[in-house]
Amino acid sequence: MLAARRLLISSATKKRYYATAQALEETTGGGDAPFFPSEPSGPFMKTTVPGPESKRIMKQLDNYQDTRSIFFIADFEKSIGNYIMDADGNAMLDVFAQIASIPIGYNNPAFLNLAKDPAFQTALANRAALGVSPNKDWVDSVEKAFMRVAPVGMSNVFTVMCGSCANENAFKTAFMYKAAKRRGDKDFSLNELQSCMNNQAPGSPDMSILSFSRGFHGRLFGSLAATASKAIHKVDIPAFNWPKAPFPELRYPQHLHQDYNQQMEQQSLHEVEQLLNKHDVAAIVVEPIQSEGGDNHASPHFFRQLQAICKKNDILFIVDEVQTGVGATGTFWAHEAWDLPTSPDMVTFSKKFQAAGFYLNQRLRPTQPYRLYNTWMGDPVRAMQAAAIVNEIHDKQLLDNVKSVGNYLQHHLNDNRKLESVRGQGAFIAFDLESPKKRDQFLTDMRQLGVNVGGCGDKTVRLRPMLTFQKHHADILLDTMERAL
Amino acid sequence: MLAARRLLISSATKKRYYATAQALEETTGGGDAPFFPSEPSGPFMKTTVPGPESKRIMKQLDNYQDTRSIFFIADFEKSIGNYIMDADGNAMLDVFAQIASIPIGYNNPAFLNLAKDPAFQTALANRAALGVSPNKDWVDSVEKAFMRVAPVGMSNVFTVMCGSCANENAFKTAFMYKAAKRRGDKDFSLNELQSCMNNQAPGSPDMSILSFSRGFHGRLFGSLAATASKAIHKVDIPAFNWPKAPFPELRYPQHLHQDYNQQMEQQSLHEVEQLLNKHDVAAIVVEPIQSEGGDNHASPHFFRQLQAICKKNDILFIVDEVQTGVGATGTFWAHEAWDLPTSPDMVTFSKKFQAAGFYLNQRLRPTQPYRLYNTWMGDPVRAMQAAAIVNEIHDKQLLDNVKSVGNYLQHHLNDNRKLESVRGQGAFIAFDLESPKKRDQFLTDMRQLGVNVGGCGDKTVRLRPMLTFQKHHADILLDTMERAL
Repeated sequence: MLAARRLLISSATKKRYYATAQALEETTGGGDAPFFPSEPSGPFMKTTVPGPESKRIMKQLDNYQDTRSIFFIADFEKSIGNYIMDADGNAMLDVFAQIASIPIGYNNPAFLNLAKDPAFQTALANRAALGVSPNKDWVDSVEKAFMRVAPVGMSNVFTVMCGSCANENAFKTAFMYKAAKRRGDKDFSLNELQSCMNNQAPGSPDMSILSFSRGFHGRLFGSLAATASKAIHKVDIPAFNWPKAPFPELRYPQHLHQDYNQQMEQQSLHEVEQLLNKHDVAAIVVEPIQSEGGDNHASPHFFRQLQAICKKNDILFIVDEVQTGVGATGTFWAHEAWDLPTSPDMVTFSKKFQAAGFYLNQRLRPTQPYRLYNTWMGDPVRAMQAAAIVNEIHDKQLLDNVKSVGNYLQHHLNDNRKLESVRGQGAFIAFDLESPKKRDQFLTDMRQLGVNVGGCGDKTVRLRPMLTFQKHHADILLDTMERAL
Repeated sequence: MLAARRLLISSATKKRYYATAQALEETTGGGDAPFFPSEPSGPFMKTTVPGPESKRIMKQLDNYQDTRSIFFIADFEKSIGNYIMDADGNAMLDVFAQIASIPIGYNNPAFLNLAKDPAFQTALANRAALGVSPNKDWVDSVEKAFMRVAPVGMSNVFTVMCGSCANENAFKTAFMYKAAKRRGDKDFSLNELQSCMNNQAPGSPDMSILSFSRGFHGRLFGSLAATASKAIHKVDIPAFNWPKAPFPELRYPQHLHQDYNQQMEQQSLHEVEQLLNKHDVAAIVVEPIQSEGGDNHASPHFFRQLQAICKKNDILFIVDEVQTGVGATGTFWAHEAWDLPTSPDMVTFSKKFQAAGFYLNQRLRPTQPYRLYNTWMGDPVRAMQAAAIVNEIHDKQLLDNVKSVGNYLQHHLNDNRKLESVRGQGAFIAFDLESPKKRDQFLTDMRQLGVNVGGCGDKTVRLRPMLTFQKHHADILLDTMERAL
């Protein structure tokens, strides 16, 4: 077992911090008072990770479940704010956050207090089938959790249980909308109703969702057909013949490669238009930043053009904000940065919102009931948590915090010559290392030094801090990176 | 507004109850002491359903969500045991139970007490990515919730977020298993890895899941391709060319139609074997009782034969217990009644277990990690509730209760000449009315009389009482039915 050691902020880091703090304070109008005063002042490591107790529990769990993907066993009771404690008593600064899904820190009082709320306890003890008999306070949750932060111009929300379910129900909505438009005022034909029961056309039409190379939209059969981040997710699983356009492969930093990047984006958009001639596409789905596929960015102009192509071709424009949504980029929704002339047709969410689903407009509601439907249609408990998240983001001005710490982090990462292709939007930041092997080693080393970080793509490190990640955390991260590299 | 009226048990019902109570007590060794002493003694109706307050809330909610499928707005805080209270103060005996998904009654103390448990509060405030860093008590939940009631011979469990996700991950497991078996010791070919990224063979193979006509396995793209209960669920949505075998259309009561039914079952099995010659099938999926599709039964012999066909053809046998599981048929899993020589290959669950997922055997684990994987991989909160459900079923001997009240209900329903094709297993009971229109009218009338019941298939009424539904509730149900018919 390693000797216990507390990682202190190096003097180099201190200088960096104080040099920029004043400038940033001016832009955010606030200091760096900790959101979690009882957080550790830094990582505290007692053992290697995973330690002996993690390994013991993993061995027991492996009798029932595959444990090969587990980093370590957590002790959530003792975790606090941006620090995750493991079963061996190691406290790590968490910049992975349960695959980018913890919004406002571990054991945030806003969540702990919810547990005492009688309405929350009622929702927990009585799980509603929301399409049959929602509780009388469900409409309040919808307003306080989802409508309060609805993308401009989007008036409806459909809730489900996970990100894959969100995307697949958005896809279904697109297919139903497109088919209904073609059908006009006519009812379903007998042939359609009969053929679909055997999974045959015309009832089961050969329509597509167009997505992008390196995109990730989930792992169920429809969402997986739209996914193209890694072969290991897809191989051996039957897929629909849905097309993939090449996502632009930009060079970073973007402002130094504008001509090249513009060319890449134009090629991508050209290929999109070509594919629309070959396939019967109901919708295009795209992530604002391709996350699982390697944190690949494109310009606001690219996305505006993409929406324009959709409009021109009468195709729906679905923005998958499962990983980018809920504040990580400095705006509540990442696509706010695009300055679109009108809202997307659908915006999907999950992860940091705790609740999953998608926004849509009333015109996309299927003409017949029971077509967008399932038993639970979401989870009132998670919707109440989503409302608490929205409150916390507002009360603590967490978007300002994300912008400020994101600027600070990006600035210092850009200065680090050991890192390739630093790119980011707010605190949603990534960089590449030389090779997949070096990246993997870096992630392991960081964990041993008390900072939990994750990878994506082939050789990318993705930073996914919670919205409560502050400049003093960023200094620890930067300092630990220097030691690990 | 209707005058308030309390529905009292008619003297006819009383006679029926006392005549059979003694006999049933002998078989169950227990009386009919109420599980919920503070339940209303019967339905209490103040308004029509939906009443004015339900309508007001539905109108507000309809700004954001489609409300056409909503029966009424619930007041879960005031609901208790087998009685659901609505927003207008109507107390209804609930024999629909949030589409068969409430296991042990509204506001069961076992659930209410959980909310006070610090471990439960920790799980609520810190949602784990279970494939990355589960909490140190997750393995306990797995043992206490899932392994304690695992079907005999099944050692592993994979948890997800909903029933459709459970089935789709079981399908993926079957495809990966079949492909790995064919591949033998070889690694993936470059061609496989490249072609799957474009959704093309050989990486995305043309393999199938075989399911049955009138089956329901979910509403996402893979599960919907296996579903064939109603055209409205499927029309306009692209589907895989997966085959459907005819599910036997039995006559009820089964013991009066043995020859005919055997013939139907043999025809179905014959067709299954024919389809296996035409399609590359990785697995057969079947419900023990086709629920959404009309409560269609088959004999234990049929299912044993089906498993034998799977074994002979090296195909996996998946039993979809999303609606039948967790005690409703009088055994924890409905397929226990089949007396299979070996366990199914996978058993999927959701609904009444609150947690969703599927059982499998270790040999079905993919050779490579991250292939059965997603962000949350289930929900620790719902797993803790599942453990509480298992405890409650054990402590209160709820399976005995289900058997007893199921016998009682089936006996009296069989005597009712106005009902067609009464069939059931435990308290999982259904009957037909003359026409879809009469069935729909019956459901509406029952609700006005204070009993919440649902339909399935075209003209079927499905009874889905909770496991805490007792003989005195059955008497109210039977009595109300007499008045409604």
